Amino acid sequence: MSVSFFLPTKVLLDEDCVKKNAALFKIMGKKALIVTGRHSARENGSLQDVTDALAFVGVDYVLYDKVESNPTIARVRDGAAFAKANGADFVIGIGGGSPMDAAKAMALLACQDLSDDELFAGRYSPDVLPIVLLPTTAGTGSEVTQYSILTNDKAQSKTSIATPLIFPKIAMVDAKYTHDLPLKTTINTAIDALSHSIEGMLAIKANSLIDLLATDSIAKIAQSFDKLLSGNVDAACRANLIYASTLGGMVIAHTGTTAVHSMGYSLTYFHHIDHGRANGLLLAAFFNFVEKQNPAVISRLLDIMGLPSITAFKNILDRLLGEKEKITAEEFKKFTGISILAKNIANCTVVPTQEDIYNMYVESFS
Amino acid sequence: MSVSFFLPTKVLLDEDCVKKNAALFKIMGKKALIVTGRHSARENGSLQDVTDALAFVGVDYVLYDKVESNPTIARVRDGAAFAKANGADFVIGIGGGSPMDAAKAMALLACQDLSDDELFAGRYSPDVLPIVLLPTTAGTGSEVTQYSILTNDKAQSKTSIATPLIFPKIAMVDAKYTHDLPLKTTINTAIDALSHSIEGMLAIKANSLIDLLATDSIAKIAQSFDKLLSGNVDAACRANLIYASTLGGMVIAHTGTTAVHSMGYSLTYFHHIDHGRANGLLLAAFFNFVEKQNPAVISRLLDIMGLPSITAFKNILDRLLGEKEKITAEEFKKFTGISILAKNIANCTVVPTQEDIYNMYVESFS
Repeated sequence: MSVSFFLPTKVLLDEDCVKKNAALFKIMGKKALIVTGRHSARENGSLQDVTDALAFVGVDYVLYDKVESNPTIARVRDGAAFAKANGADFVIGIGGGSPMDAAKAMALLACQDLSDDELFAGRYSPDVLPIVLLPTTAGTGSEVTQYSILTNDKAQSKTSIATPLIFPKIAMVDAKYTHDLPLKTTINTAIDALSHSIEGMLAIKANSLIDLLATDSIAKIAQSFDKLLSGNVDAACRANLIYASTLGGMVIAHTGTTAVHSMGYSLTYFHHIDHGRANGLLLAAFFNFVEKQNPAVISRLLDIMGLPSITAFKNILDRLLGEKEKITAEEFKKFTGISILAKNIANCTVVPTQEDIYNMYVESFS
Repeated sequence: MSVSFFLPTKVLLDEDCVKKNAALFKIMGKKALIVTGRHSARENGSLQDVTDALAFVGVDYVLYDKVESNPTIARVRDGAAFAKANGADFVIGIGGGSPMDAAKAMALLACQDLSDDELFAGRYSPDVLPIVLLPTTAGTGSEVTQYSILTNDKAQSKTSIATPLIFPKIAMVDAKYTHDLPLKTTINTAIDALSHSIEGMLAIKANSLIDLLATDSIAKIAQSFDKLLSGNVDAACRANLIYASTLGGMVIAHTGTTAVHSMGYSLTYFHHIDHGRANGLLLAAFFNFVEKQNPAVISRLLDIMGLPSITAFKNILDRLLGEKEKITAEEFKKFTGISILAKNIANCTVVPTQEDIYNMYVESFS
């Protein structure tokens, strides 16, 4: 038995956790850089909760609210420069994966001069601004990972910064910020979380302890399939989904992701397909691929979801995701060439060849 | 749903994990204080593995090998003075709960002047020597907790230092150091670990995520009952037990312990009953007590262990623990008066009265 576990983030998942833990901001620093997207953190009340908490404990802040979906290197350089110009000594990221991942990269770049290549190279000095993250979607799990995924035009894909330096010090997780998410976003992010926990169990770094987290995460999301399909996503379901997505983050913090993610990145980069949706479109084909060499693990995953077959899983995903995008064979060839280069490919317990990847793309969109 | 999780310890549970991770010692400091008991770390090979690893990476050390069972305040003051006198800048604790807990207290006292009362008061400056721990029994889980339990003659009991400052930086967990433990020690420590995970599920701070760890820990130990009863404790069983005990440590790091531990401390203090054995002697009576107000949780615990009734559980514990000590009603009254004062009592989801505690003592030894 071999088990590694390391998660230096204090996870506080609770109703009104920002208000209840306001005192922690005081320990983090004197002036926060708050990183958000343009709208959602204002609309769902999370930004107000944070600024109220900061005011309550007398901590100053500046707001950087320009993060778009799939943030670029230029975007995080801009935010880091803003942090430096304003003397911020810690970072609070609020949002889905994009603002949270951007916040992590800004925390690093605010302290270190790194070229674009150096940014992804994994060799850093120990200096980074402390990070607090608040997820406002139930998908990415970024609030408990050491990853920041940025759009990298040079690689024509997404590329990860991966370093323990950017583990958040604190994750404040409150389902209430997800209550008014549109159904489509709710579905896409839930499938992203599902994909994290599933991929974690299919990754070479899977271990017994992480398996416990992945199993509960997958079960909780599968128990929400009916509500997601009916569109009746109540507060109890929201609570389960954000818990499951935080668990999914803890999973990939230890295991990394697999071929599903590397394949999905091309769908997002070239077709602007939402990240969670991209994973969801590919999951059933990945199940079919893995089953050929390891039927036991697929059988176990289906058991955890309470599903009788991969076909049943595919049917649920198809109904959740709706009509698929049209993508040509030529494009799939290009995507295959890009995704085979990703580190995630070698992270699969059953490693796909270039041909396997191409076939999974075709099967997923047929 | 409310879930808190915080475990800043890097957990490395693996065969030969000391050798494989020797480089980590280099990051910890220049000179280690190694803390052990008098014999076992020499006999089970753990001390040799550590000194080999330190030599390999060129880190100096001094050895403090005087820790007895149930270490006293005087003992940890002596070790801290030795650390200071020798300029140690980090601490490596090797052993069962006693050397590991002593190592934590020494790491604190080497950096801070604290009176006996201050030592347990919970208010410290942030200075502490970094700590690496290697368990050589599968029971305490101290390698992943923020607790150091010391014998406190003033309280006529054991008292906890509890502060995130003494979370180990690294826990290196290798089942091979437990391979030659006597059966009696193996049983007592396994029951200690079982008690941690059970008490965690019965504590007011229990939460969904910690429940996953506790459940797996309890299941793994229960699956070992037959081997423990037969005395045929093979390597696979040892691996399961040390994994389960590390999980148990992660559990109580989040939940604390309950009445079982507070009641057990008197048995250890006044009758020198081994700590794990003391918990084991009390567990069935605690089950009977909790069942009256919360039968569902007891039913669940029995299900996890695959047992049909509390009587079946009690029978297994009785067979594992053998003949019980003779203790008088007068002594139980005294123990009751002491244990009712412990913080652990209020940590129970079903809180016992003084009468309940007395009755549990009597039932346990009848």
